[in-house]
Amino acid sequence: MKTKHVIDLKDMSPDELIQLIKLANMIKENPADYADACKGKILATLFYEPSTRTQMSFKTAMLRLGGSVIGFDNPQNSSVSKGESLKDTITVVGGYADIIAIRHPLEGAAKVASMYSAAPVINAGDGGHLHPTQTLTDVVTLYNEKGTLSNMCIGLCGDLKNGRTVHSLIKTLSCFEGNRFVLISTPELTVPQYIKDVMIASGSRFTEVTSLAEAMPMLDVLYMTRIQRERFANQEEYEKEKGVFVLDREKLLAARRDLSILHPLPRVDEIAEDVDYDSRAKYFIQTIYGMYARMALIVTMLRHPDKTPMPRKFDTHYVRCSNPRCITCTEPYLPRLFHKAGGDMLLCKYCEGRTLI
Amino acid sequence: MKTKHVIDLKDMSPDELIQLIKLANMIKENPADYADACKGKILATLFYEPSTRTQMSFKTAMLRLGGSVIGFDNPQNSSVSKGESLKDTITVVGGYADIIAIRHPLEGAAKVASMYSAAPVINAGDGGHLHPTQTLTDVVTLYNEKGTLSNMCIGLCGDLKNGRTVHSLIKTLSCFEGNRFVLISTPELTVPQYIKDVMIASGSRFTEVTSLAEAMPMLDVLYMTRIQRERFANQEEYEKEKGVFVLDREKLLAARRDLSILHPLPRVDEIAEDVDYDSRAKYFIQTIYGMYARMALIVTMLRHPDKTPMPRKFDTHYVRCSNPRCITCTEPYLPRLFHKAGGDMLLCKYCEGRTLI
Amino acid sequence: MKTKHVIDLKDMSPDELIQLIKLANMIKENPADYADACKGKILATLFYEPSTRTQMSFKTAMLRLGGSVIGFDNPQNSSVSKGESLKDTITVVGGYADIIAIRHPLEGAAKVASMYSAAPVINAGDGGHLHPTQTLTDVVTLYNEKGTLSNMCIGLCGDLKNGRTVHSLIKTLSCFEGNRFVLISTPELTVPQYIKDVMIASGSRFTEVTSLAEAMPMLDVLYMTRIQRERFANQEEYEKEKGVFVLDREKLLAARRDLSILHPLPRVDEIAEDVDYDSRAKYFIQTIYGMYARMALIVTMLRHPDKTPMPRKFDTHYVRCSNPRCITCTEPYLPRLFHKAGGDMLLCKYCEGRTLI
Repeated sequence: MKTKHVIDLKDMSPDELIQLIKLANMIKENPADYADACKGKILATLFYEPSTRTQMSFKTAMLRLGGSVIGFDNPQNSSVSKGESLKDTITVVGGYADIIAIRHPLEGAAKVASMYSAAPVINAGDGGHLHPTQTLTDVVTLYNEKGTLSNMCIGLCGDLKNGRTVHSLIKTLSCFEGNRFVLISTPELTVPQYIKDVMIASGSRFTEVTSLAEAMPMLDVLYMTRIQRERFANQEEYEKEKGVFVLDREKLLAARRDLSILHPLPRVDEIAEDVDYDSRAKYFIQTIYGMYARMALIVTMLRHPDKTPMPRKFDTHYVRCSNPRCITCTEPYLPRLFHKAGGDMLLCKYCEGRTLI
Repeated sequence: MKTKHVIDLKDMSPDELIQLIKLANMIKENPADYADACKGKILATLFYEPSTRTQMSFKTAMLRLGGSVIGFDNPQNSSVSKGESLKDTITVVGGYADIIAIRHPLEGAAKVASMYSAAPVINAGDGGHLHPTQTLTDVVTLYNEKGTLSNMCIGLCGDLKNGRTVHSLIKTLSCFEGNRFVLISTPELTVPQYIKDVMIASGSRFTEVTSLAEAMPMLDVLYMTRIQRERFANQEEYEKEKGVFVLDREKLLAARRDLSILHPLPRVDEIAEDVDYDSRAKYFIQTIYGMYARMALIVTMLRHPDKTPMPRKFDTHYVRCSNPRCITCTEPYLPRLFHKAGGDMLLCKYCEGRTLI
Repeated sequence: MKTKHVIDLKDMSPDELIQLIKLANMIKENPADYADACKGKILATLFYEPSTRTQMSFKTAMLRLGGSVIGFDNPQNSSVSKGESLKDTITVVGGYADIIAIRHPLEGAAKVASMYSAAPVINAGDGGHLHPTQTLTDVVTLYNEKGTLSNMCIGLCGDLKNGRTVHSLIKTLSCFEGNRFVLISTPELTVPQYIKDVMIASGSRFTEVTSLAEAMPMLDVLYMTRIQRERFANQEEYEKEKGVFVLDREKLLAARRDLSILHPLPRVDEIAEDVDYDSRAKYFIQTIYGMYARMALIVTMLRHPDKTPMPRKFDTHYVRCSNPRCITCTEPYLPRLFHKAGGDMLLCKYCEGRTLI
């Protein structure tokens, strides 16, 4: 892998992605060969936002490679509560650990970690922005269950507006040939324009529909997502949306026999419990693939030769990012870094939000 | 061991129990022989209710067998707070880990875990219901300190109504010959009727008394328990009961020289601190036996060949369990499962509570 | 090392300290030689007060020695919340673990742990009292960065009244020849009298100044400290003091080229962020030295032959310690132990506070 850190899955080429999937499968087939692959190595899991599931998956992955784990899952118990900057925490932990997995409620936080860490950094979720190891999990599952990452008809259902796993999966599968997306949501929760731009730019076909039942017969893959309560402005809005797209056995009657149902988990009630006993339900196996995906990622990243020891200095822009959920809002020492996005537009290098000069 | 899971110690025959005690002693005598017994294996400790002591004992046990540990001790930090069902959490963690120890505030939760986990499950306490590894600890201690599990006069003192460790110990020792129980409590905190039924059915003699001092001279074993504040309706009721049965050096003057004093710990003030220096105090050594007991249990359970990969479906009854602390109250997808208990009575398979049809 | 426990760095002779520093350096140079030095051993980190940084440093140290770790970082989740005494917790954990690192908000807590633990105890901070492994970190850093522990001009800046790391560093460096201290603080936050007594007794010169800029040119070492918000009576008092002694690049213009800047971390804003890029900034490397220092300490302490199995009884004094932050205030069973301090004065053996008979 060329990049030292994995902040966004797009840092990886499709070829590199396939290599990683193949390594995940090799580990799955021959776990004993990898049982000491990371002996003596330490993973730090820095979870500024609780996510037992993701953290457990990373920990299990590292332990099954013979490595060990330090970290926290509760920012109230950490030095953060004494007012320490993200930069300082990362600089220190990057000296203790051999590899870091960070989860943070603010967008761009993992990018910040990668700027100051001597150890390679994995983005384990930065706010509503990116969550590349979930997408890696999804493609390892698809590659194994469907035998390909191309020429599929992929339905995505639920909160397509806020669901970062949906955005990331679309971006990744758009790099492979012949995929078609069926976007199933209410008009309020459709995918953002920039995701549509990605599909258009890659030549991937897509349709937007408001009925899960209607879309069902044409799907090779159905990717269900949770209506995330914490992303809603109020309880009322949440109650209104959450029941609309529930997958149950009745809706499945119209589905293909070789459909694969995925879900990033945890689910609330968007998949009825008795769907679990249908052989097309792949969301539990998906978590096992996720463990092997993370094992493959850790093994690969620990091979990277770059061991930059100390923080580097960056030039700063005079404009501030206008995204209120960008990490630059709470970490004032951060250099303001932008890509030019055409016209008077700047694209924040942390959160990818757009700001007018 | 015949059963895959250990939810209730009664799942084990007296012979299997003796085997386990002997293995615990072998590990205690030759720890180096077992230092890699679980190398490469992972224990998940899922503690939905805090219990540092029990969790540390399990962790230490697994680490001293060369294995490693994942888990949580704080449900607020877990996916549970996003509304995930116990079934889903267990299904996923049962895929990550090789063995699970679960503690939960609701009765029957460990039984639920055993229904959906591919990995073997140990009940580390389900509400006021069962706590088999504490009882295992107690019998390993008794076997080593008294040289037998039979023909003893065993005093049990404190909260005999709510103390699950007391109930479990009585049930287990009732399977061995010639044991006699002296039940020392206020009239409000006596053992429930079904525990008396167990003693009667097994032919074990028992007496109920209200004075610790009076009972003292006849005891081979004194099992003290904490008056558990959290089991009381209000603070006043707690204050009234808690000081009544305090063991101190004065009361010990009337005791046998070979008495063994046990306590499941943590204690509050039911044993005066200076009793610690009496050689009959075995409650600290008891925690060491507990560690070896858990090591023996883990080693034994990991030998079990059954690796059921996925959840199975169960038929459900039309009647609901009437116990408000039963796990079925908060996990509505659970099939309602009962044993017939004679007449119009049903016995809930999760919490063992009785419900009228 | 002669002592079994490390509660105060003064328990160690200057020679023993130099041995420890040399061992830390050997481990740093040849980590592979020590990768299994503590295989099969367990460190318990009992953190009654959150300190992610210190806890991570201990964990990393133990893991890099091939050992493993149990413990907690959240007293609300622990048996403490059920009213368990520190003595009981320590007695039990001292049976599970091979070595204990304890951090506690009350002064003398680590001393208590050492009285009841079968396993050796490291004080990882007891309230505002002692924090010997931070000082060990500081001297390992100084020895490596300056090549000596003698004949230096050491500036200490910030909260010198409440900063336990400052007190401990002064006491330790006073044991080496020719050191001179420049105490930089507001009049409200100067070092306590007993620290001045230590410097006077050892023949170390010291000056008290109120300007960081003025002191700068003469310093070989500048030890910056955080103005600890939690040590202040109110927010207003904190706001008044915190900005007064900020180190920035401008002040550094007057400094020596071979100055070493240390800081125990976490910092808030007492060092401007762009000082990080100055080669004289040693506070991040300092954390790496800290990890090796703790590795050396753990390796050394685990060699100690004393394995006292059970708590011993102590005689108690009729006088109570008058320090409201002393551990004896909350743990009433503790024997009251004092040194005679001349006249009618007693020195508490736990917190070193003075009490009039």
